[in-house]
This record gives sequence, structure tokens and C-alpha cells, in this order.
Amino acid sequence: MNRIIPEPSVIRLCLMYRLMERLENNGVKTVFSPDIGENLGITAHTIRKDISFLGEIGNTAAGYDVAKLKDHIHGNLGLDKKRFACIAGLGKLGQALLNYRQFLDGDYRVIAGFDSDINNLEMLRTSVPLYPSYRMTEIVKDMGIELAVIAVPVQAAQEVANRLIAGGVKGIINFAQVNVKSKSGQVLIRNIDLYGELRILSALLNLKETASLKKVNGPDPGKED
Amino acid sequence: MNRIIPEPSVIRLCLMYRLMERLENNGVKTVFSPDIGENLGITAHTIRKDISFLGEIGNTAAGYDVAKLKDHIHGNLGLDKKRFACIAGLGKLGQALLNYRQFLDGDYRVIAGFDSDINNLEMLRTSVPLYPSYRMTEIVKDMGIELAVIAVPVQAAQEVANRLIAGGVKGIINFAQVNVKSKSGQVLIRNIDLYGELRILSALLNLKETASLKKVNGPDPGKED
Repeated sequence: MNRIIPEPSVIRLCLMYRLMERLENNGVKTVFSPDIGENLGITAHTIRKDISFLGEIGNTAAGYDVAKLKDHIHGNLGLDKKRFACIAGLGKLGQALLNYRQFLDGDYRVIAGFDSDINNLEMLRTSVPLYPSYRMTEIVKDMGIELAVIAVPVQAAQEVANRLIAGGVKGIINFAQVNVKSKSGQVLIRNIDLYGELRILSALLNLKETASLKKVNGPDPGKED
Repeated sequence: MNRIIPEPSVIRLCLMYRLMERLENNGVKTVFSPDIGENLGITAHTIRKDISFLGEIGNTAAGYDVAKLKDHIHGNLGLDKKRFACIAGLGKLGQALLNYRQFLDGDYRVIAGFDSDINNLEMLRTSVPLYPSYRMTEIVKDMGIELAVIAVPVQAAQEVANRLIAGGVKGIINFAQVNVKSKSGQVLIRNIDLYGELRILSALLNLKETASLKKVNGPDPGKED
């Protein structure tokens, strides 16, 4: 594929892919852009535009074929590419992630866990090999790990990011309550703020309560942007 | 405030609020829309448009005053509104969230936890009152809880959502690996997909590797939408 796709569109297309998986599992055959939009909180206009970045998908007047759209996104975004992942920080959150089935047998398979507390490493029971944090750079490099999840306390987050990046990690999901950065700017980092999710909910409720919120797929949604 | 703000703009404004908090903590006084955009992965155009929904904020040719923009978002989105929250499901993930400092002393304070396993409830040490799941609807109603976090296994997620909603919960953050819905459509639900975050990272990496990814704030970002 040689088209240029904007980053926010890639993110939305990944969310669409997941929705198509679910619709397919529920036996849904056809879907229209406003339905996709309503599910994802995006305008139908944006949905159509995002899909258009992937090139021709055929006549859509009768809606999108769910299986076809799913395959279309899958192929064009290269979602069949397998990558190895690791979890840095095995407190409660890291342990919870180690238990996610998808993290163990999906396309982005967790093949190592790290923690600075050796006692903790010895206590944990998991099929994933665990290592002390000081070996992080070496193990990441040796195992060819490209994706990492950071679930360490705030004060350790940037140092852990540096070690992962030194080992060759190309993408990081950061749950620490502080943003981490890559010095080169070459590593993709998604900072996830769980408390911020409550703030978003509360703000949406405030506006809903004062009737100042515009749902993106109301009777006449217009253009979002 | 009597302006109508689209839902995606509210979400982006909440992310901007958090960024302003951080910039302020780092002693930054002034910020420009392309800088905000780069931090959040959004075009400068969208940033300016989102901020404009909040009304007049003064001359911006010299950039936004960080403290002023923060207060502007805070006031207009009603972020000072305090709400009670609860956590449903106290496995590893729920326990991790119970340990988040912000969840215990922030504006959206967790004042109850629920689990179906009575033995688990007795083992957990926390300052938050814990209750068996069968009392969920009653406790949520009695305590005036408006926000809830669902961290239960897939098969229990919709039933737990129904109980929370029956108790009067208005907003839900769902970590279960299945989307939950509110029958009336009146409850705000944000389904969070941790595995999907790895998919997004991988897709972005694929496109970066084939030079098909357009960073939104490159040399000539143009309009995102």
C-alpha cells in the first residue's frame, strides 16, 4: 500500500476493525456508515473518509459488507503482522494484563514480564517467562520484542521507557500516571490515563445535564470537522 | 454555558486540560496550538476549533496562556463538579484501580467496591468500603454513586452494567473484553480495549515502516478533516 493515511484515521480504522469482528460474530452481514459512527462516536462522514484512505471497496449504497470491510482494513493496515510484546512492572495492573488471554495467544503475544522486585517474580505463577528489570534491555533485544506495556510506578516510568527503547522497542503503551517520551521521537507512545477517563465521563455528563452536548449522530449530524 | 459542543471535542478538551495541568507543573507559561496538537496527535486546526467551542479566550497570536486555558476548560466543562464512583469487580485489575491515589482523593472519588466472591472481599485491605455484588443496585442508589468502573470477567459484564444502571449510575468505564450497552441509551459508556491498544500500535508501526503514515503535525500538516 502506498497511500498516506493520517494517524487519527489509522486509530479509528483499528476501532472499526474491532467493531466488524463483533458484528460478524453476531451474524450481522451489512452495516451502514451512520451505524458504525454511532457505535464509535464519530460522524458518518468521518467514517466514510477513513475507509476511503484504504482505496476502493466497491458499491456502498447498499451498505458495507461486514466481512469484506473487516478484511479490507485487516489487509491494508497489515493487522496480520505478528509482533512480540512484554509487560514492564508486575504489580496488580501488570499481573492483570498477564492474565488477559488475548495477550498470551493473540497476534501481539506477551513473551516476557519484568519486575524490579525479585521476591515478586518468584511468587508469581504464569506461563510467561519473567525477568528482573535490570535485564530488560538485554532480554528485549535478544527476544526481538517490539511492543511494550509500562505498568510501573510514576517515578520509574521514564527510566523503564529508556531501557525498553534501548533494547529496540518500537511502540509503548504507558499506564503510569505520567507521560513518558522517547528522546529520538522515533518510538510510538500511547499514554493511557485511567483517571482521565472518569474526567471525560463527568464532563460529558455535565454537558448532557445542561443540554449542551451534541451527539455526533443525531437527526442531523452535519460535519464533525 | 449554552453552546452545543460535539462529543469528540469534549473528549479532546479533557485531554487538553490534562496537558495544561502538566505544562503548568513544569513551569510552562504559554503554549501554541501546534504544540498542543503534537502532544495529543491532533491537528492545530482541530485544537483551535475545539477551544473555540468554549467561547472567547482572548488574543491567541502570542499563544495560549497555559493557566488561563486550563481554567477556561475547567470552568466551561464543569470539571469542578464532584461525583462519586465505584469499582465493580475486584480481581487484579479492580484491585490495581483501588490503589490509584487519584481514585481515592480526586474529584471522582471511589467510595465503594463490589465483588461476587465474599472470600475475596474479606481478604482485601483497603480504606474503601467493599460489598458483595448482589447488593450493588441498592448500595449505588443509597450512596448516590454516578460513575462506575467495570472490571469483571466477560460473561458477567452486561449483568453488572444492568445492576449499576438500575441503581442510577450515569456513566460507565468498561474494561471487560466485551462491549456493554445501556438499554435506554441514556447512560454514557466508554468501552476500553487494552488488547486493541496493541493493535493500534502495530498498525501505526506497519504504516511507519512502509512510510504510509502521515503524522498530523508534520512540516505541512494541512487539515485533518
